[in-house]
Amino acid sequence: MTAHSFADRIAALDGPGGRLCVGIDPHPGILSDWGLPDTAEGATTLAQTVVHAAVAAGVTLVKPQIAFFERHGVGGMSALAQVIGQARSSGLIVIADAKRGDVGSTVAAYADAWLGVGSDFESDAMTAVAYQGVGSVEPLCEAALSAGKGLFVLVNTSNPDGWDIQQALVASGTTLAQHVFDGLVARQGASGLDGWMGCVVGATLQPQERAVQFPDPMPLWVLAPGFGYQGAQLSQLTTLFGGVSEKVIPTVSRSVCQDGPDGVVPAIVSHLRELQE
Amino acid sequence: MTAHSFADRIAALDGPGGRLCVGIDPHPGILSDWGLPDTAEGATTLAQTVVHAAVAAGVTLVKPQIAFFERHGVGGMSALAQVIGQARSSGLIVIADAKRGDVGSTVAAYADAWLGVGSDFESDAMTAVAYQGVGSVEPLCEAALSAGKGLFVLVNTSNPDGWDIQQALVASGTTLAQHVFDGLVARQGASGLDGWMGCVVGATLQPQERAVQFPDPMPLWVLAPGFGYQGAQLSQLTTLFGGVSEKVIPTVSRSVCQDGPDGVVPAIVSHLRELQE
Repeated sequence: MTAHSFADRIAALDGPGGRLCVGIDPHPGILSDWGLPDTAEGATTLAQTVVHAAVAAGVTLVKPQIAFFERHGVGGMSALAQVIGQARSSGLIVIADAKRGDVGSTVAAYADAWLGVGSDFESDAMTAVAYQGVGSVEPLCEAALSAGKGLFVLVNTSNPDGWDIQQALVASGTTLAQHVFDGLVARQGASGLDGWMGCVVGATLQPQERAVQFPDPMPLWVLAPGFGYQGAQLSQLTTLFGGVSEKVIPTVSRSVCQDGPDGVVPAIVSHLRELQE
Repeated sequence: MTAHSFADRIAALDGPGGRLCVGIDPHPGILSDWGLPDTAEGATTLAQTVVHAAVAAGVTLVKPQIAFFERHGVGGMSALAQVIGQARSSGLIVIADAKRGDVGSTVAAYADAWLGVGSDFESDAMTAVAYQGVGSVEPLCEAALSAGKGLFVLVNTSNPDGWDIQQALVASGTTLAQHVFDGLVARQGASGLDGWMGCVVGATLQPQERAVQFPDPMPLWVLAPGFGYQGAQLSQLTTLFGGVSEKVIPTVSRSVCQDGPDGVVPAIVSHLRELQE
């Protein structure tokens, strides 16, 4: 890990407010609401507005949703590179929501793209998916460890469609979500370093709906999308996550954009207040 | 579906030889073997060589591995757009091996990127992953149907690491791989159109190792990576897949590049001969 690794920087953030993560989602519906063209340029304008607002509101974590840039082709990926660079230059910690997954040298190539030092898309952390096995994320772990980056792997998502899969039972009798979670805990443990690995668990899941049980103490960060627009209340964070709350990274995305460009800072400030309730 | 849809075009290909799919994998090790720089320019040179060789050898299907372009950043994605365009202009059918997955408007954005008519990365089909539920691929299905494209979803991969997950049992008692497969069959059935949906099943899996049973008649295409470099023999296609062989798209990637730029056409021709054994 480097001196200013993702693990060090996120550990230094103060409480759930300090860890509020603002999504950068240039969704076509929001571009339209804002009167922006549905182009790479429109996406750039929206993304830069969110980055500036995050800085102004005192937020440190941002999460660009890669799909909303990729849909604009080469120009969209160029916009993404620019936005990631500006965000990191502004002192923000960037979690690339890429949900990449593959095996062997292919997933290592995704690690180069998102966690590689000097890459156009170099971020501080990325999201990944492990349909091809928990071991398939190993090259991402190696890349994260060598470059001081973070890694968040999908475990239990909030869309009911996903439950059939995530609640399936593996050979040991645990759920698939638990199997992936335990595999991530084991990998972080084997690394001898804490604080660089996380899981993605939807915030709109009630505790009794979850296919994963969190140990105490909780070894992983929990990236929790679903607050705001999707319905989970930030003021309910402790109710939803109990003792694990201190490891939760609550994430808001579309709700910060719903009142136009001038409404982003007030929306973030309002979300920060909800976390203090 | 459009008049010259993916479904129509792939159905018109003759036998497993006609469906041989050549991977476009500018792997850093191959770039090095070929004396090419590990850059977007090197990746472009390799990719164009493979495209020309595929045309020269009479192959119709190519499968660029997106990760090996993405790792070169914006320049890599620009190279990819150029390569996809050249391949399609040359009459090739392009399956973008992107393994994208997400939910709702986000996965719809990936559909825009890879299946959208006029997109920089517009391909004829793409690969996807359904960790977030079989229903999560619905926007990809809709995009494929409306634009005459194809969709291949990961079902049962050949890396043993993936088996814990793919052999997990869902609530109905079937394996996860079978659950995903059956969901894909149901979605194609509900569309009233055949030939646009496929599954990804590793060729190195022996039939008894598979977590999925194929029905007869087989309604889906089977994109089967693992031939050549990874060890499965094309001459064993019928042994491996039995009556399903007529729906298999055998895929070779690194093996076509192992004898340098001048060896690509001979390697493809040799693979075509193996399929006729």
